[in-house]
Amino acid sequence: MEPDHAGVVQASERIRTHVHQTPVLTSTLLDERSGAQLFFKCENLQRAGAFKTRGATNAVRSLVQDTAQRGVATHSSGNHGAALALAARERGIPAHVVMPHTAPAIKHAAVAAYGAEIVSCGPTLADREAALQNVLEQTGATFIPPYDHAHVIAGQGTAALELCRAVSDLDQVITPVGGGGLLSGTALAVSAIMPGAETYGAEPAGADDACRSLQLGSIQPMDAPDTIADGLRSTLGRLPFAIMRRRVADILTVTDREIIDAMHLLWTRMKIVVEPSAAVPLAAVLGTDRFRDRRVGIILSGGNVDPQALPSGMSDA
Amino acid sequence: MEPDHAGVVQASERIRTHVHQTPVLTSTLLDERSGAQLFFKCENLQRAGAFKTRGATNAVRSLVQDTAQRGVATHSSGNHGAALALAARERGIPAHVVMPHTAPAIKHAAVAAYGAEIVSCGPTLADREAALQNVLEQTGATFIPPYDHAHVIAGQGTAALELCRAVSDLDQVITPVGGGGLLSGTALAVSAIMPGAETYGAEPAGADDACRSLQLGSIQPMDAPDTIADGLRSTLGRLPFAIMRRRVADILTVTDREIIDAMHLLWTRMKIVVEPSAAVPLAAVLGTDRFRDRRVGIILSGGNVDPQALPSGMSDA
Repeated sequence: MEPDHAGVVQASERIRTHVHQTPVLTSTLLDERSGAQLFFKCENLQRAGAFKTRGATNAVRSLVQDTAQRGVATHSSGNHGAALALAARERGIPAHVVMPHTAPAIKHAAVAAYGAEIVSCGPTLADREAALQNVLEQTGATFIPPYDHAHVIAGQGTAALELCRAVSDLDQVITPVGGGGLLSGTALAVSAIMPGAETYGAEPAGADDACRSLQLGSIQPMDAPDTIADGLRSTLGRLPFAIMRRRVADILTVTDREIIDAMHLLWTRMKIVVEPSAAVPLAAVLGTDRFRDRRVGIILSGGNVDPQALPSGMSDA
Repeated sequence: MEPDHAGVVQASERIRTHVHQTPVLTSTLLDERSGAQLFFKCENLQRAGAFKTRGATNAVRSLVQDTAQRGVATHSSGNHGAALALAARERGIPAHVVMPHTAPAIKHAAVAAYGAEIVSCGPTLADREAALQNVLEQTGATFIPPYDHAHVIAGQGTAALELCRAVSDLDQVITPVGGGGLLSGTALAVSAIMPGAETYGAEPAGADDACRSLQLGSIQPMDAPDTIADGLRSTLGRLPFAIMRRRVADILTVTDREIIDAMHLLWTRMKIVVEPSAAVPLAAVLGTDRFRDRRVGIILSGGNVDPQALPSGMSDA
């Protein structure tokens, strides 16, 4: 099933009481700096610290009761694991999260805090898939992938839906792109509600598979990502790619240096904690004239980063 | 003139288009941790990064045009200086900010960025007062003090006014207390709109002059403050003290260790940047049973802190 705009609206109704309607913030200084009017949709302030809670909650709430009771499972060393754990706890069903034993302790702690069972595995993709397969067979749980899933994509699109309802006449909306769930969900919402507006993706130059995939017309695997933006190292998903081909205006790339500078601006000027991935769209907006004099919506994707372990060189920008 | 509740409502109308109506955030995790229902009014997301913009804007907008044209002046090494500079720029009048030459470069930069004239002086209070007096005589500017001023107090109270309008049935509201402008303005707003609710102040144990002043019934000077919360080292003002005696339930004190732990929770769990002073009320709520099972409003006062210079030991709390 390919998701569509109606799916985003349904998702919005379905998850409404389980997620935060996050604020939209503005900054005179960042408007001056960019030459645009920027509207920041703060998914870093979302429950579990990222937009992922929307997609996971929509997927978990879409399961029929019999299926749901057997639980849900995924593999993730990042925000999707914590989001799924939270969504499952809220519905009162088990969650199993396969994580490499090499993942940072802070990631384990986030998933464990929401009461999920953590299944440790080796560091390779094959290790993860084998461990997940084993969990699914033993428990009968339903696999909820991080982005290549209609209900997940529709859920991620609800952030843009809220943004478009809160701010009129946006010219452009821009999100980070890793697996493509957020970008494709956003494109579905924006193209239906604000047909005149364009949707952009932004990604690190060291993980530019989305850019190359759109240019070449087929999914290009992300073999050796090299970027500080740990949330954007995945290869694009099949469903997101299909939507992006039709509804995304362009993908912009930025350097890690630009990401760190944008992150510093968001921390010091807007007083919000964002992870590197979340700073990528602002970095893109500051790096081109394409957004000048426009009304631009930016989805700030998440805030899960250790303030004691900031990237070195996050100095005055 | 002593400020009253009507002054807060007037201030709210007067500054409405010049300040952010900041969001009220909640956190399931901090509710669980505190045993209370907490509503955070995010003045760290206010323009210029602190509630001070409210009071300064109200004071500047209250001046008649002839007086305003001659400019405004203050002495401040903190948020009030930047707030006054911003408020003056918005009205198109000059601002003069007297700052000790020992103040951090980042504070100078904030004031200068808003176009104020910075007047350097020596580090003592006598130096500052002499420099200010000199500015006032030379320019005819109006002195806008940081807290001991009716329009400033009324302006600071507008944050609580918005909070009480946004969240029904609060049992308690708590703010940090330094000079007392925010706490007294808050008490005026809360006692009028939610007469059943109590207003509390919270301050560092190493700068507990407000606590001692209320106990002894007269203002106790803060001679040698010793706390990380740099915004709360001032001695209580005369006008704030008069209001607090009648309308504040109690002042709670917390250690610097508790402040740092609360600051860490706000950064990592709520994903917002707060300065140490802003974490003081949450530290107080976590340190007592007095707020258990209540609906508690917390004014997060500001977010002006350098993420690269976090207090050491802001470790996992």
